[in-house]
Amino acid sequence: MAHALDPLLKPRSIAIIGASDTASRIGGRPLHFTKEQGYKGKIYPVNAKRETVQGLPAYPSIKDVPEAVDSAVISVPASIAVDVIRDCAECGVKSAVIFTSGFAEMGEDAAQAEISAIAEESGMRMIGPNCLGVFNISHGWYGTFANAPSMIKVANGTAGIISQSGAYGSHLFLAAQSRGIGANYWVTTGNEADVDVAEVIEYYAQAPDVDVILAYAEGMKDADGICRALEMARDAKKPVVFMKVGTTDAGARAAASHTASLAGADAVYEALFRQYGVYRAETTEELADVAYACQFGRFPSGNKISLQTISGGVGVQMADASVKRGLDVVPLPDPVQKKLKKMIPYAGVNNPVDFTAQALNDPDLMDKNVSLTIDEADYDSHVIYMASVPASPFTHDVCLKIFGGLQEKYPKEVLVMSMQAPEDLVRTYEAMGYPCFDDPSLAVRATAALTRFGEIYRRGRPDAPPPLPNGALPAPTAAVAEHEAKKILGSAGMPMTKEGLAANAEDAVAIWTDIGGPVVMKIASPDIPHKTEIGGVLLNIDDAASVADGYTTLIERANDAAPDARIDGVIVAEMVSGGVETVLGVVSDPVFGPAVMFGLGGVFVEVLKDVTFRLAPFGIDEARRMIDEIQGRAMLDGVRGAPSSDLGALAEALSRLSVFAAENADTIETIDVNPFIALPTGAVAVDALIVPKTET
Amino acid sequence: MAHALDPLLKPRSIAIIGASDTASRIGGRPLHFTKEQGYKGKIYPVNAKRETVQGLPAYPSIKDVPEAVDSAVISVPASIAVDVIRDCAECGVKSAVIFTSGFAEMGEDAAQAEISAIAEESGMRMIGPNCLGVFNISHGWYGTFANAPSMIKVANGTAGIISQSGAYGSHLFLAAQSRGIGANYWVTTGNEADVDVAEVIEYYAQAPDVDVILAYAEGMKDADGICRALEMARDAKKPVVFMKVGTTDAGARAAASHTASLAGADAVYEALFRQYGVYRAETTEELADVAYACQFGRFPSGNKISLQTISGGVGVQMADASVKRGLDVVPLPDPVQKKLKKMIPYAGVNNPVDFTAQALNDPDLMDKNVSLTIDEADYDSHVIYMASVPASPFTHDVCLKIFGGLQEKYPKEVLVMSMQAPEDLVRTYEAMGYPCFDDPSLAVRATAALTRFGEIYRRGRPDAPPPLPNGALPAPTAAVAEHEAKKILGSAGMPMTKEGLAANAEDAVAIWTDIGGPVVMKIASPDIPHKTEIGGVLLNIDDAASVADGYTTLIERANDAAPDARIDGVIVAEMVSGGVETVLGVVSDPVFGPAVMFGLGGVFVEVLKDVTFRLAPFGIDEARRMIDEIQGRAMLDGVRGAPSSDLGALAEALSRLSVFAAENADTIETIDVNPFIALPTGAVAVDALIVPKTET
Repeated sequence: MAHALDPLLKPRSIAIIGASDTASRIGGRPLHFTKEQGYKGKIYPVNAKRETVQGLPAYPSIKDVPEAVDSAVISVPASIAVDVIRDCAECGVKSAVIFTSGFAEMGEDAAQAEISAIAEESGMRMIGPNCLGVFNISHGWYGTFANAPSMIKVANGTAGIISQSGAYGSHLFLAAQSRGIGANYWVTTGNEADVDVAEVIEYYAQAPDVDVILAYAEGMKDADGICRALEMARDAKKPVVFMKVGTTDAGARAAASHTASLAGADAVYEALFRQYGVYRAETTEELADVAYACQFGRFPSGNKISLQTISGGVGVQMADASVKRGLDVVPLPDPVQKKLKKMIPYAGVNNPVDFTAQALNDPDLMDKNVSLTIDEADYDSHVIYMASVPASPFTHDVCLKIFGGLQEKYPKEVLVMSMQAPEDLVRTYEAMGYPCFDDPSLAVRATAALTRFGEIYRRGRPDAPPPLPNGALPAPTAAVAEHEAKKILGSAGMPMTKEGLAANAEDAVAIWTDIGGPVVMKIASPDIPHKTEIGGVLLNIDDAASVADGYTTLIERANDAAPDARIDGVIVAEMVSGGVETVLGVVSDPVFGPAVMFGLGGVFVEVLKDVTFRLAPFGIDEARRMIDEIQGRAMLDGVRGAPSSDLGALAEALSRLSVFAAENADTIETIDVNPFIALPTGAVAVDALIVPKTET
Repeated sequence: MAHALDPLLKPRSIAIIGASDTASRIGGRPLHFTKEQGYKGKIYPVNAKRETVQGLPAYPSIKDVPEAVDSAVISVPASIAVDVIRDCAECGVKSAVIFTSGFAEMGEDAAQAEISAIAEESGMRMIGPNCLGVFNISHGWYGTFANAPSMIKVANGTAGIISQSGAYGSHLFLAAQSRGIGANYWVTTGNEADVDVAEVIEYYAQAPDVDVILAYAEGMKDADGICRALEMARDAKKPVVFMKVGTTDAGARAAASHTASLAGADAVYEALFRQYGVYRAETTEELADVAYACQFGRFPSGNKISLQTISGGVGVQMADASVKRGLDVVPLPDPVQKKLKKMIPYAGVNNPVDFTAQALNDPDLMDKNVSLTIDEADYDSHVIYMASVPASPFTHDVCLKIFGGLQEKYPKEVLVMSMQAPEDLVRTYEAMGYPCFDDPSLAVRATAALTRFGEIYRRGRPDAPPPLPNGALPAPTAAVAEHEAKKILGSAGMPMTKEGLAANAEDAVAIWTDIGGPVVMKIASPDIPHKTEIGGVLLNIDDAASVADGYTTLIERANDAAPDARIDGVIVAEMVSGGVETVLGVVSDPVFGPAVMFGLGGVFVEVLKDVTFRLAPFGIDEARRMIDEIQGRAMLDGVRGAPSSDLGALAEALSRLSVFAAENADTIETIDVNPFIALPTGAVAVDALIVPKTET
């Protein structure tokens, strides 16, 4: 079935409005490139001042073009752009690529809103304004004035590039080219009056000729769109490698001044990427390197890596890099080590396998070496370091023979090559199926990325979030006290301390009796969120007289400190001892809605900011992954002889909180469940705060 | 003055023992390369079976060579190598490059010890055995069988490469070549029977034709040598960029199986590198990239970075990368922003300065832009992102003019270029003085490295360690109890809790009276290191009766739990409250001797392993840098309204501990001062343990 963006990305006919006879000018380039590169469809240059443009008959206006083209490039001044766009829509043009700048990026929001409205009313799809356009190499279509198409070296690939920024899009294309990535599609979305980065990712996720997606964005405005797109890409097992900038204050400041885009808090983007298995690259070099490896379409089925090297020192480096990136450099089984030792007595045979340069004297050995490791040990990936040996005139041919044979013999194994060789030889090894890396540590980095994608694809769709329990209370629309917040969260399935609200001292004693052990007493008031600051909490009380006294003391303190506060009474709650303090929370992102936070209490949150986020709602498996991500994770396994925590209960609580947050997205501003105590069996919230959105 | 390694690295005459007539053979390559590359000295091939070798008259043995050559390459089988080496020494050969393998790397330690002894007795300097040799490009000297010399593209540089591993040395040379680094010297040390990595670094530190040092090692055996070498390099302001592998268990396992080298614990190497301002690279790509930037010899005088870009999106990336690497993306002063805005109304002018592609229409603007930023704002470095603009035929010439002019106008500014351009154009910009980077984030990484070197060079030599106080006690040679350990460390100038050792209950009460506040009571025994486990600690005791009872209780508990333990009595110590718990420690490294550790108490050490090390002894400034390195650093500034800690007292204690450890290096195995409490004013050790070395 045709996709809505087909007219934009595979147009059967095009018009170029503002076409220039000079190939080097902005309005001349699309025509020049498209003509040169064998575009098969019909091309209509639009230029009122000329009979012909670059040898083709010109039309005075889009209205004079004899057919409703699939795509029109609009390269006209801002003053007339809106009229031209409207003309296109009226003529039934199916899509437009708008180079023109001078819209939202310069504060001209009204003009941009106007063209968004045209898109919506007419159904004409639109890319830009203020963009560098699109191209599709295999289609011969270059709706762009970027220079990049004049520098294509690697064509016929299955990568798709999508970049909000045109300049960065060009940069990324060239970086991808240098790295040997065949990027067929290239789209820059600019101000995103209609089509955005998310929709293009969705297109790539469905396009049969795209296998890997390289993406860049500064901010996103359509949460559902990007989630849907990333989910489709994940389901289609198409790796998305993403550069999302603005992670620091200085970065965010620059992002705000750059495009008319809402940069969400970075933690939320981090959550999004983790949730949908996106690889977030920190540099363009990393983005290109990882996407390059993904092109080969083989993903390890586990994290056990075998390292084969002609240099012991490089073996050590690769081992370091593997461990750092979570790969398991498991030693070869003893019997295999013995066999290897027999073949190459001086080899290191543990893993890394250091077959030493001597193996070159008897090249069959290298073949046997690798074959043995594949056949008799259980590794998921293999990185082979060959230095410049495959490029040396003495060993060039024999290496080609060995490695050609190996890849043929093991077409499904993930075999990654690290070697120093000229570009043409690298292309030869790539054609044989080997991703090739100059730097052995970066070969390992890419293998780790492939391994992660493999894990994500094996895992498939995450668990469904649990249903909200019957009778769950809604989130409050005005401030509520702790005991109310707990009642609400408890109704949503989160475990809460056993407690009661006492209206007088006798009540308090009765609740204490009922609990049957030491209690905590806390003032209950929606107007006193920070109870400890006014002495509003009493710990470890365990006799009737003290409970009764405690009631009176707390009421007095509250009256003294906050005479106008509404006092609901005093909470009498079981005293929880032991366990590990954690913090669960919810924040509401203006674009993505509620995101759930997890961290450990105390210095972990306060000093180390050791927290992780996910977009709500999510299931228990995703919650388990959150728990595993934090730096202080070992605390939950029990430190210094402490018992390990009930991770299942913790994960369920996170998941249930996410469901509650998602159901009440419109009313919740933030939730703090702090502390939430993870016990050896079960878990329990000791305090909770729900802050509703202020009405606007 | 001549250096001891001159005969090895700048020989005036050479012999090649085992010279082959076939240029491609191991014994043929040194002769072939050296002859080809214009070596000016005399060459004597040694080969008993031929009249001539590669056209030169051959000599049957080194004894027949008519002069005592500066350097002899030894390319003979292991069976005769020792005899040949001895012959060389007897003939007065000044240095030898020993290719031959089959020594310590194969467990033949005796044979290797024999050649070490020859070196020592004769004074003949020796590189190898089991090495790939050396070369010096400008000298035309190739005492190597590596392939690398046949692939030299960038010559006449001022970089020196030193690698323990020959294979990795070749890899590094090629990686450096690809990155545009002119490495003139190249040395691989192999088994290091005589010359080691440290001595070559020392040579480079003194060599007038070396400015940057690229180093690789798996382990080191001469602590003084490497410290001296790195100190000389730092004093000479020659950056050392180091790859030291074996950081993880898997890595260390591979290192142990690779060379006959003692791999010290990685924490100690990390300490060494931090202490001497070495840049430790994680990948070869990073090593080459940073060394490349250092070649230009300009180091920022502070960490304020200005970012100039033709792409807003890339500006954000560079800002992110800057902040992540500790650079300060300080905004431009308001008046400068106003002037820029006047010149380019649509530019982002905060920092990053986004002069947009429009600046290309009026190239003078770009010049003015950068000039204004340099003249009127106070930045220490500038990274300029130009995408592929300098390579485009339309803008090639104008860019050359602008950037040529800028560098001429500001010859001392650190101007770093990020652009995508072909190699020859990159060489042109390099010749103009610009370090060039494809990737803008990596341009920032390199600028951060230059900034760090700048800081280290400005700082100069670190403070001298404080003297050991008069009357400082020596470290014990047998186990001592806590109170003894404290007395010893106190005598060395570390602040200790006020306390006394009570021999009976009355003593205990007297000490409590003297202290004048709540006390801690602890059993004192050299045989009970873990006192809490036997109930040997009582906290917060503050009346005479409890103190007296406490004494009896502790003695009873000790007698019950450890009937054979020697009991010195009971420690009565002031109870320290408040402050931040830290941990100070000493470990003894077999190569580097005592190293001092610093960390925060509790989860920071137990869960996060958040500690840092320095080799003892060191001064107070180095101790301050240790404190600033830990992740939990903010704890010492006061969290949640707590007062900030006395960093001066903490640093002094670390420094004094290091002096004590260095003075007693032979007797100390480990020291734990845990907890050491950092107070708002002062600091104090609450517990201390000194473990002496067991006699061997």
